[in-house]
Amino acid sequence: MNIPRTSFPRVVIIGGGFAGVALAKKLSKQEVQVVLLDKNNYHTFQPLLYQVSTGGLEPDSIAYPIRKILKDFPNFYFRLANVNEIDAKENIVKTNIGDLNFDYLVVASGSETNFFGNSEIEKHSMAMKTIPQSLNLRSLILENFEDALLTSDLKERNALMNFVIVGGGPTGVELAGALAEIKKGILPKDYPDLDTRMAQIHIIQSSDCILKGMSENASKKAEDFLEKLGVNVWKNVRVTNYDGKTVTTNSDLTFEAETVVWAAGVKGATIKGLDAEEFITRGNRVLVNEYNQVKGFNHIFAIGDIACMANDEFPNGLPMMAQPAIQQGEQLGDNILEFIEDKPMKAFSYKDKGAMATIGRNKAVVDLKNFKFQGVFAWYVWMFVHLFFLIGFRNRMVVFVNWVYNYVRFDREARLIIRPFKKRHKV
Amino acid sequence: MNIPRTSFPRVVIIGGGFAGVALAKKLSKQEVQVVLLDKNNYHTFQPLLYQVSTGGLEPDSIAYPIRKILKDFPNFYFRLANVNEIDAKENIVKTNIGDLNFDYLVVASGSETNFFGNSEIEKHSMAMKTIPQSLNLRSLILENFEDALLTSDLKERNALMNFVIVGGGPTGVELAGALAEIKKGILPKDYPDLDTRMAQIHIIQSSDCILKGMSENASKKAEDFLEKLGVNVWKNVRVTNYDGKTVTTNSDLTFEAETVVWAAGVKGATIKGLDAEEFITRGNRVLVNEYNQVKGFNHIFAIGDIACMANDEFPNGLPMMAQPAIQQGEQLGDNILEFIEDKPMKAFSYKDKGAMATIGRNKAVVDLKNFKFQGVFAWYVWMFVHLFFLIGFRNRMVVFVNWVYNYVRFDREARLIIRPFKKRHKV
Repeated sequence: MNIPRTSFPRVVIIGGGFAGVALAKKLSKQEVQVVLLDKNNYHTFQPLLYQVSTGGLEPDSIAYPIRKILKDFPNFYFRLANVNEIDAKENIVKTNIGDLNFDYLVVASGSETNFFGNSEIEKHSMAMKTIPQSLNLRSLILENFEDALLTSDLKERNALMNFVIVGGGPTGVELAGALAEIKKGILPKDYPDLDTRMAQIHIIQSSDCILKGMSENASKKAEDFLEKLGVNVWKNVRVTNYDGKTVTTNSDLTFEAETVVWAAGVKGATIKGLDAEEFITRGNRVLVNEYNQVKGFNHIFAIGDIACMANDEFPNGLPMMAQPAIQQGEQLGDNILEFIEDKPMKAFSYKDKGAMATIGRNKAVVDLKNFKFQGVFAWYVWMFVHLFFLIGFRNRMVVFVNWVYNYVRFDREARLIIRPFKKRHKV
Repeated sequence: MNIPRTSFPRVVIIGGGFAGVALAKKLSKQEVQVVLLDKNNYHTFQPLLYQVSTGGLEPDSIAYPIRKILKDFPNFYFRLANVNEIDAKENIVKTNIGDLNFDYLVVASGSETNFFGNSEIEKHSMAMKTIPQSLNLRSLILENFEDALLTSDLKERNALMNFVIVGGGPTGVELAGALAEIKKGILPKDYPDLDTRMAQIHIIQSSDCILKGMSENASKKAEDFLEKLGVNVWKNVRVTNYDGKTVTTNSDLTFEAETVVWAAGVKGATIKGLDAEEFITRGNRVLVNEYNQVKGFNHIFAIGDIACMANDEFPNGLPMMAQPAIQQGEQLGDNILEFIEDKPMKAFSYKDKGAMATIGRNKAVVDLKNFKFQGVFAWYVWMFVHLFFLIGFRNRMVVFVNWVYNYVRFDREARLIIRPFKKRHKV
């Protein structure tokens, strides 16, 4: 892979998400060589993907070149690569661009959409974990409305205008809210020759509340907000299949919809070589100890979504969110340096900074540790926090301009079908 | 196509570029039904495509939803459609979403890249006429630099870092300048482990000057600017082939390059039914009279790049640029209304507002009718004019933010491979 061996120990990081980037930053000015591998040349700010799908933000505003994040750091190497396998015995990472030796390996490969083995749902529904996926969804939504104009079959037309979102977590809730705002503010103007009141937005949650990880107040209020926006919230309903036309559930309930977004779960993006049963636990995550070490190894670590670190408060592992990933990345940066110098590492302890979700214009729910609130102020807090954590000054500026514009004008201008998703239009 | 017939005459416009949009705006509040057909749901601001290719602007900032441009206008219909054929005898436009009758037809289908029949060049080189093409070029440039890191074969590495731009018109010149800025400001930081001084930028022009349509001063100064930026300007050289590896020319000169951009010509994007020899003239354009009427028809018009309207000053037709397109669109709006009321139409007369091109930071050339100037002031004028003509307040804001940021920080942050162009990476 053309990376020179120096006297510094080599730390290979797989994945440039929140965890990998936080770790790389920590290690960047230390006496280690850092090689970061990612299949993209950019870091994705996943919490705002739903705004890309709904035309509120441009995709490039929530992506950031990884090379730029770490450009001033010596001893840092980035390679655009797909990792195929980890040879943990020989300390080799095998990729599509060749093999790479490591002294220390950190798996920060994140998570992917979990279809729970249902290949028909996987084939027909849309995921929203990456920028290309979000752009595909954006295209599909717009293409379906264009197609709705072409049919005089009422059932077909309604199906083209219906949205079913499976999963009532933050992703599902935020997407449903954004779609409801579009239905209200944009569709009637863009499609005057279509009765867009017929467009239905359904959110389906298998358990008895949405935003399950948050407080009861937040969950209830979010449901209120969604219902005020005209979203149909279905609880205690489990989707059993989607054949591209009809969503079937564990009850008599069915939905006719051409746009189904699967936001019902994620699983660890495991890599061959570390995917044996002994390493993997619930949700396809790699079991790690309190130092983020993978079972059986001193020098192989996992951080972020892929890592399952259980404690008393989180017996099934820390939540798969940005905060644990960033904190683990930063902590592991210190720990690896300690480890190299044969000093004791510090056990990771998660500082829960809370959770939040926005439902729409002036509507958000925020759970901080000692302060839970909902409504307009929560909405401002949500925006401030997201702007703060977004990487890059330019990105923050552009997102800010878009948000102000969208707020003042009740608009979302990136409703562009740049790359059509449907192969061809029905005649 | 589900468009109701009203008592108003129906004007069908093919194409939502500068010409089509200008015309639609003029007709929008009149007693005509307007149906605009385009294969995209957005208008593209083509003059800034090269900035998308070079990571300076986000693609969504130079695209604008056509539905939004015309949302407040009654009697206006937009359909996302590929036009397959015009049946001029039966007054029918045939598209992939069905047939459409018209009373008046305006062809504003624009232009496409002209490879002059060389299929090998067409296969291996990059065009830059649409947003997806520009994004492909952006991906390819970045992928080639990532690949350059992987090879120890010096010749191959240099080929991956070389750029050949064929055509010294505004597109070629502006792209070459932007690439030179990237070579200087970004590549050394992004690829510290690559000798990016080896990256060569060549611009090849078959005639004896670049920016041929502009003044001699502008042409010379642009060449100066390019050479100061380290671009190799080759004049009186004609590219004869490109096999994906080597660019051959009519002389002994050859270039090894993995990135070749074909900006050597455009031709009218003709449509079946109006592509017979009797309609078509030089550059594949449809011959029109001074009222933009297509030969042999009173009710079929062509405007913009596709229309060839010759006059004493421009015996080969007006230049294929935004200004003639916009002016023709506006004028035809008035003329169609006159024609409907059986009043005499007004002959089109082109108001030449001049031409301009930017070469890089603080470097531009501007030819106004009575005032030709080059340098920093020209650069400000160039930016002001482009911001002014860009459609949409949000787009202007976002472009402005990006330009200020890029200028202050010597940066271009949209260097993202969102959709890889090369099928796979070489190992």
